[in-house]
Amino acid sequence: MDITTLFKLSSGLYIIGSKDNDRNIGCVVNTVVQTTSRPVTLSVCINKDNFTNTCIKKTGGFSVSILSENIKENVIGAFGFSSSREKDKFSDVSFGLTPSGMPYLKEGVTGFIQCKVISTTENFTHTIFIAEVQEAENISQEPPMTYDYYHRVIKGKTPKNASSYAENTKTTGSSYKCSICGYEFSGSKEEFENLPDDYKCPICSVAKSLFLPV
Amino acid sequence: MDITTLFKLSSGLYIIGSKDNDRNIGCVVNTVVQTTSRPVTLSVCINKDNFTNTCIKKTGGFSVSILSENIKENVIGAFGFSSSREKDKFSDVSFGLTPSGMPYLKEGVTGFIQCKVISTTENFTHTIFIAEVQEAENISQEPPMTYDYYHRVIKGKTPKNASSYAENTKTTGSSYKCSICGYEFSGSKEEFENLPDDYKCPICSVAKSLFLPV
Repeated sequence: MDITTLFKLSSGLYIIGSKDNDRNIGCVVNTVVQTTSRPVTLSVCINKDNFTNTCIKKTGGFSVSILSENIKENVIGAFGFSSSREKDKFSDVSFGLTPSGMPYLKEGVTGFIQCKVISTTENFTHTIFIAEVQEAENISQEPPMTYDYYHRVIKGKTPKNASSYAENTKTTGSSYKCSICGYEFSGSKEEFENLPDDYKCPICSVAKSLFLPV
Repeated sequence: MDITTLFKLSSGLYIIGSKDNDRNIGCVVNTVVQTTSRPVTLSVCINKDNFTNTCIKKTGGFSVSILSENIKENVIGAFGFSSSREKDKFSDVSFGLTPSGMPYLKEGVTGFIQCKVISTTENFTHTIFIAEVQEAENISQEPPMTYDYYHRVIKGKTPKNASSYAENTKTTGSSYKCSICGYEFSGSKEEFENLPDDYKCPICSVAKSLFLPV
């Protein structure tokens, strides 16, 4: 089997939002698909280890923010490479609440969808949630971000919990690499070491100490 | 709810192949998504009225041909707007068979995947098949066809059985429209009526008599 064949499956990039009691939580996925038109339903596949999975099972609801090509890299990084267990991922972004109170992003998105879970299927490491679409609103006419654009243009990485994760040890000749999200610093070893101590990964915001030489 | 928000969900375009006894059958979908990486599984959502749905349930297997931007319009038309119950859709295309004997397209595709069903979930009008990926091979390096590209560049239409189907009565000022696939003839009423009697829809190949004035 050639795993790279699977890389040709096209998808968008989304932030799923939900609630942990009163707290806003969420994560990045590329697995949203419309499943029926009457009634309008969709499915989304989320790793069982993700806190968002636990919260959707408790609340029975979630939002989908459809990311546009204008979404900031560090927003994808914050939602994709850290856990809502430890961090308020919505603290640094402009967000609104759907009628049922689920958080959605207001900037760098084309719109949001509010969903109510109607069934779940456990599939190895992931849960597939099937949900009824209750609300859907457009926010901008920006082009939707595709997963291909994220990898090809933004040079984004794939979190280990993603359903499409594939081990990749290839580097582009950089000197240091973020151990959390895989971001590769493009300068020399000396340039990296001369960065200030408060330097943070531009993708996932972790400290300089979490970079490793490559 | 603004249904156009759902149009921003990105997806690819695929031909699902399976068997009706010894006969090759198949249909077009835009609902393939990788669901886990260990083991490699994917899901695909197919209308219960599609003959392909019935055949996958009987055989427990199917192929996915990942369409590229070079796929011919009339191939999408033939697989999307007619039924394998009545027609051998593979008769006009170059195809191969996966190790388990499922038909896949050899031209206008980036590769094929062979799948074995591990579970099904019935969801209103559609079935969601979850399947283990058994084989996957690249065929070309052509860019994968996205559903957005199909609508925007090829001006393709959506079959009524698709999960993302939305009623659309808008026309682009054409004179006649195909009643099966929605293709709009771009010339005048007189030009359409002067076409030879054996004229066929360039998208779905049905006869001239199935066009209606708009």
